[in-house]
Amino acid sequence: MSDFEQSEFERRTERAQAAMRARELDALLFCSEAEVRYFSGFRTQFWLSPTRPWFLLVPAAAEPIAVIPEIGAELMAKTWIKDIRAWPAPRPSDDGVGLLTQALRGYSRVGLPMSEETSLRMPLLTFEEVRRGSGVDFVDCSDLIKALRMLKSAAEIALLESICAIASAAFARAPRLFRQGQQLKDVFREFKIALLEEGADDVPYLVGGAGQGGYGDVISPPTAEPLREGDILMLDTGATVGGYFCDFDRNFAIGRADEAAKSAYRQLWRATEAGLESSRPGVAVSVLFRAMHEALGGGTTNVGRYGHGLGMHLTEWPSVAAHDQTILEPGMVISLEPSLSIAPGRMMVHEENILVTDGAPLLLTERAAPELPIL
Amino acid sequence: MSDFEQSEFERRTERAQAAMRARELDALLFCSEAEVRYFSGFRTQFWLSPTRPWFLLVPAAAEPIAVIPEIGAELMAKTWIKDIRAWPAPRPSDDGVGLLTQALRGYSRVGLPMSEETSLRMPLLTFEEVRRGSGVDFVDCSDLIKALRMLKSAAEIALLESICAIASAAFARAPRLFRQGQQLKDVFREFKIALLEEGADDVPYLVGGAGQGGYGDVISPPTAEPLREGDILMLDTGATVGGYFCDFDRNFAIGRADEAAKSAYRQLWRATEAGLESSRPGVAVSVLFRAMHEALGGGTTNVGRYGHGLGMHLTEWPSVAAHDQTILEPGMVISLEPSLSIAPGRMMVHEENILVTDGAPLLLTERAAPELPIL
Repeated sequence: MSDFEQSEFERRTERAQAAMRARELDALLFCSEAEVRYFSGFRTQFWLSPTRPWFLLVPAAAEPIAVIPEIGAELMAKTWIKDIRAWPAPRPSDDGVGLLTQALRGYSRVGLPMSEETSLRMPLLTFEEVRRGSGVDFVDCSDLIKALRMLKSAAEIALLESICAIASAAFARAPRLFRQGQQLKDVFREFKIALLEEGADDVPYLVGGAGQGGYGDVISPPTAEPLREGDILMLDTGATVGGYFCDFDRNFAIGRADEAAKSAYRQLWRATEAGLESSRPGVAVSVLFRAMHEALGGGTTNVGRYGHGLGMHLTEWPSVAAHDQTILEPGMVISLEPSLSIAPGRMMVHEENILVTDGAPLLLTERAAPELPIL
Repeated sequence: MSDFEQSEFERRTERAQAAMRARELDALLFCSEAEVRYFSGFRTQFWLSPTRPWFLLVPAAAEPIAVIPEIGAELMAKTWIKDIRAWPAPRPSDDGVGLLTQALRGYSRVGLPMSEETSLRMPLLTFEEVRRGSGVDFVDCSDLIKALRMLKSAAEIALLESICAIASAAFARAPRLFRQGQQLKDVFREFKIALLEEGADDVPYLVGGAGQGGYGDVISPPTAEPLREGDILMLDTGATVGGYFCDFDRNFAIGRADEAAKSAYRQLWRATEAGLESSRPGVAVSVLFRAMHEALGGGTTNVGRYGHGLGMHLTEWPSVAAHDQTILEPGMVISLEPSLSIAPGRMMVHEENILVTDGAPLLLTERAAPELPIL
C-alpha cells in the first residue's frame, strides 16, 4: 500500500540519523503531515480533521516510533513502522501526552521543526505539557529536515514528473474547455475534472483569476463572473499523485489580447528562459533570482519571490529570492515563477517546474507557448 | 466576492467582543485558516502553502486588523476588513514579527486558541519572538471560539445544506458509477468527478475502503485493488461549497452480501435512528453517545466517538463521546457516525449529517437506505 519501497524510508531515516549524530540530537519529533509521511509512508487525507494530534519520533539509534490515535493504527501497520503506540482519541484528559512523554523518556536533546515554513500541528498547551513532563530540551531542526527533503530521490522525482505531465495534458485541453461567457467557477470546475480525468489523484489547489488585460492577484477562488473578450485567464494548479504536488500556471487570452498583455507575457516567458539558463548545480538561488529579475527589468509584485521548491507540499524551500543563499544541487525540484505588474491591480505570472540536474535543468512541465495563447 | 453579507462578519465579531469583555481580554489573535476566514471572510486555498504565516487580530474595542503577506493584500481588500497591514513575505529576517508585535502594542491579555483541536499555524520560534517582543500575556481562548463556531448562522446552514444535498445526489449515482472489477482508485476518481458535476466546489476529503464483508479502517486512500463480489465498499467524503464541508459516508455491497454484513449494516442504521431520536436541544452529547452505544449493544471500534460537529472544518467540536458534556442547541450541525467491529480487521461505519433544531433534528443528508444496498 506504500507509495515507495521500504528501502526509500530506510534511506531517509539513515540520513536523518547521520545528521542527528552530527548535532548530538537523541531524536527528532514530528507532528505534521509531510514529515510523518516522509519517514513512515503514512498517507491519509484524515489530517484535514484537526481533532487529533499525531506524532512520529525518529530516534538517532533506533527505529521510528509512531504515537498516534487508534483510528490510524490499522493504516500505520501497513507501512514499514513496527513500533506503533496508539491511544483511543479523542480523549481530552490525555490526548497522547502520556504516551508521547513516555516515548521521550531517556532522551535529553530532541529536534523539532520550529522555524521558517513550519507549524506546530498540535495544541500549544499539549506541547508545553510534553515539554514539562519529559524534561526534554527541544531544539530547532528545521534546517535538518529542509536539507533532507529538498533533495528528491528518484522515486520522488518519478511522482513529480508524473503529476507535471498530467497537469500539462489538462492544460493542453484548454481550447476545448474554456470559452467566452463561461462563468469562472465553471472554468475551475471543468479544469478540476480534466485534471482528474488525466490521472491526478486530487486537486487540492486551483486558484486563478481573469480580467481585462491581467488580473489582480494570484490566490483567489473563482467568482461567478463570465469570461469576457479581452480577459486574461490565469489558472494555477497544485494537483497531486501519490501525495506529491505540481505547482504551475498557464495564461490564456479570451478572444483577443491587447499589446500590453502580449508584451508582459513575452517578458515573463523570457525571464523564465533566463531562469532555465541559470538553474545549474552550484548556483545560489539568489543568483537565479537576480537573472530573472534583470530579465524583467527590475520591478516588484506582491508575490515576494520568483519561485520555490515543491514536493510533498505545494511550496517548499528554497525561495527563489534575493535573500536565499541555498545552492542548487542535482535532485532539487523547483518552480520558476516570475511575475510582473502591468498596472495597479493588474498583474501577470508565469510558472514552470524543473528538476535541477548535473547539467541543464529538466523541464517537468510542458513549456508554455512563447506567445500568449488566444482562445 | 465574499461568501456572506458584511452583517454576518459584524455579528461574529460583536459576539466575540462581548465574550472578550466578559473575560477581560483585550483582543484575540488568530493564525489558522478557519479562524481568519470566520472573522474576515478571507477564503483562499493558498493556506496549503506553508511558507508564510498569516495573522488576524480581533480587538475587544476596535475593528479587526489583518497582518498578512503582501500576496494576500489584494484579496483581503475585497473583504470587510479595512485595516490591512502587509509585509513582503517571505522575508526570513522579519516574517511578520515586527508588524504583529506593533499591532499588539497596548494590549496586555490576548486570547489565542491553544487547546483541544487547535494548532499553532506559525513557526514556534515566531510565536516565542512575538510573545517576548510584545510582552503580551497570551491566554487560551479555545472554548470561546468553539462556542461561537459551534452555533451556525442561517447563512452557514444554507451552505451546509447545499453541500450535503450535492453529496447525496452524487451518492445516488452509485449504481451507475461503481462495478465489480473496477479498481478502487478509479472508484474514487469517478466519485470525485460526480461530486464536482453535482456542484461541489472541491473534494478535499475522500477516503474509504473495500473488503470481503467489511473493511479494515476508515481513513485510507484508494489502492489499485479491483472491487470483488462480496466486497463492502465504503466511501466517506468531505466535499465543500463556499468553504463549508459535508462529512458522511455510504456503504455498498458488490454483487452480494453475507448475513454478517447485512446485519451489521442494519444495526448501524438503527443506532443512527436512536441518535436521531436523541438529538434534541438541551441533551448532552454524552447522552446522545450513550443512546447510540446501547443501540449497538456496547462494543468499541478504533474511531473513538460516534460523531462530531462539522462546518468550516471536516470535523469540529463537539465530540459525540462519553466524555463530552456539550449541550445540544438549535443551530448546531453534527454528524451521527456509529461504527461496529465485525471481526478483527473488519469493521463498518455509517454516517449522517444533521441540524439540531427546536424539535426533531433536520437531516441534511438524504437518509441512507435501511438495508445494505447491493450493486
